[in-house]
Amino acid sequence: MLPLGFQFAGISCGLKASELLDLALITTDAPSVLAGVYTQNVVRAASIDWNRDLTPSDSFRALIINSGNANACTGEQGKSDNEQIAVRLAEQMDIRPTQVSVLSTGVIGHLLPMEKLGQGIQNIVSRQSNNRTDFDLAAKAILTTDKGPKTMETSFSLGDEEIRIAGIAKGAGMIGPNMATMLAVIMCDAVISPSDAQRILLSSANQSFNRISVEGHTSTNDALLLICSGQSGTQVHTESDLEIFQSEITKSCIELAKKIPSDGEGASHLICIHVSGAESDQDADAVARTIASSQLVKTAITGADPNWGRIVSAAGYSRAAMNLEKTDLKINGQPVFRNGQPVEFDAALVSRLIAENFETGIELKIGSGHGQATHWTSDLTVDYVRFNSEYHT
Amino acid sequence: MLPLGFQFAGISCGLKASELLDLALITTDAPSVLAGVYTQNVVRAASIDWNRDLTPSDSFRALIINSGNANACTGEQGKSDNEQIAVRLAEQMDIRPTQVSVLSTGVIGHLLPMEKLGQGIQNIVSRQSNNRTDFDLAAKAILTTDKGPKTMETSFSLGDEEIRIAGIAKGAGMIGPNMATMLAVIMCDAVISPSDAQRILLSSANQSFNRISVEGHTSTNDALLLICSGQSGTQVHTESDLEIFQSEITKSCIELAKKIPSDGEGASHLICIHVSGAESDQDADAVARTIASSQLVKTAITGADPNWGRIVSAAGYSRAAMNLEKTDLKINGQPVFRNGQPVEFDAALVSRLIAENFETGIELKIGSGHGQATHWTSDLTVDYVRFNSEYHT
Repeated sequence: MLPLGFQFAGISCGLKASELLDLALITTDAPSVLAGVYTQNVVRAASIDWNRDLTPSDSFRALIINSGNANACTGEQGKSDNEQIAVRLAEQMDIRPTQVSVLSTGVIGHLLPMEKLGQGIQNIVSRQSNNRTDFDLAAKAILTTDKGPKTMETSFSLGDEEIRIAGIAKGAGMIGPNMATMLAVIMCDAVISPSDAQRILLSSANQSFNRISVEGHTSTNDALLLICSGQSGTQVHTESDLEIFQSEITKSCIELAKKIPSDGEGASHLICIHVSGAESDQDADAVARTIASSQLVKTAITGADPNWGRIVSAAGYSRAAMNLEKTDLKINGQPVFRNGQPVEFDAALVSRLIAENFETGIELKIGSGHGQATHWTSDLTVDYVRFNSEYHT
Repeated sequence: MLPLGFQFAGISCGLKASELLDLALITTDAPSVLAGVYTQNVVRAASIDWNRDLTPSDSFRALIINSGNANACTGEQGKSDNEQIAVRLAEQMDIRPTQVSVLSTGVIGHLLPMEKLGQGIQNIVSRQSNNRTDFDLAAKAILTTDKGPKTMETSFSLGDEEIRIAGIAKGAGMIGPNMATMLAVIMCDAVISPSDAQRILLSSANQSFNRISVEGHTSTNDALLLICSGQSGTQVHTESDLEIFQSEITKSCIELAKKIPSDGEGASHLICIHVSGAESDQDADAVARTIASSQLVKTAITGADPNWGRIVSAAGYSRAAMNLEKTDLKINGQPVFRNGQPVEFDAALVSRLIAENFETGIELKIGSGHGQATHWTSDLTVDYVRFNSEYHT
């Protein structure tokens, strides 16, 4: 079941070629809690600045997302267009503009076609419902180069009460690990304070959306939102409830985040990099991130080559502390490097394990510390290069 | 004319398949000055540790370089093998092992075939000469995935005296900008102190070899050496002489360094990124480096797409201070973005300028400061991915 208290819609308003869906609406039946984490790129879309001013909030009512045009690098006009979107939707819904969150994704450097968008805003409000069909249309309307919609749903119990979570996300390219490298919205019907929601979202983002990449290019429009409608009536307030809630939101974020590199442009593998034995979690994160960014590691996995030299040497330039004599590496569970020395292994077997599975596991221990981190990335294929060199602005 | 006081040789000793050249020797007729800058990767080849202990030196006599095997990640045996190379060459030449510099490049994680190498060392000593033919053979013997040899030659005057410089380099892949992402040797016949040579080389490296990349993967074996034979008899000692010398060595390093991304694996363009208007040279360097590392920028150039959004957004996540309202961008001299706003430009013309020239110029001003930096990188092509995913260990 979808979380209580939400309505959804997805329509086409002509931002994209043909009749593709390009406008999504998510509303709550009553004022709700909104938390958000945004791109760290200093070149930010107008929508990001608007949302940063809004969050955290306890009066959220509507989120409108357009795809096909990022409204980034568009100066003062872009800023004013973004505000107009909030103003017009607020008029339609008889709420205040500051109750409206706006997100945009698509090409950079083009002004929004405000007439089409204004018409779209008028049309979309009457189309919303709490049906799954409309949830699915909303999930579709935010996509750009994605192969298909990315959604998740779960529920969990707090005492005798049930809390429902659903999430949607988009992203396949320009995915770099520095919060939040795409658009994602987590919806939930728990009752929680804005400050708790914000804290929990930030922590979850650091374990999930901040640990994924396709090519490591942090976009101008990334945002992760958490909306809590409160309509389940279930309070999340005690320390133990907050802990359970944190863990569930993190799990949901990881489930949704992994779908992004899995759908990375041209990807033929999801690479899951787990680093342990580091002096700190930060060091482990730096190593995992560096391996995930290495084109040589990515192309080795594309070619099903258990090329451990590329992995170990990438770890070596991460600037994290590393004890080479206590460094071990496994690829898909098979030891290939131990205590800083090559290990005899069945290269044909490991190659087959990489070739035959979509997910490749890289487990690297870099010493005897307790720091660890996991990072997910896509491999680098001829199709990625074709797609991004043949695409024209 | 080649610098005075040097001899060269290049032979095949069977480290590579077929009869490809794989062993180079550069010697000086008398004890000479050696300076060196090495990879910052903590996973370092045995040869790098050996050389770090030697430099700077004023008793250098011989440099031996093998290609085809990096002798990296080979533990204690690798260290002992590296020492054996120096010991055997020293015996042949009747010098001390600490007068021998050793460099290796090639695949990671395999022990050196010491018998072949021992035979090679015995053969190569009698082959050396100061002829250009042998200089060219040495330049060829250090190559791996390079399309062809990378050399440079120049001379300049100090007062009435002439000083000659020659350089050789190798590198086409695993090129990441963190000193020194390849092998390069600069030879010169000036008389200079080891400490001046070391200081000048470090400064030149920061303007050249530390500002190039192919895919940004810092290798385990990178080294840049400066050998000054002193055989011209021309002293470089006064402050003004040292300044002229510094400038000439930097120019030589830049000339040689640019040949590496120009020959980047699969490269169809050399991309020259000049960043100005930054608050500091460090900030400008960070921005240039981030743009150079962006797969989305590289693939846009491959496709001759003047996609300025990818360039500006890459600058935005470099963490350098950036004044978007004073940000201007030119591609191949054509303004495409000014004062933080898109500029009307002839996209077909800019696209043609990219397509028709091997070198693409990106000029980005990010504010009104005085910091600037230049970075050179290759584009990212289908051939790069093919080459690195089809290559098998």
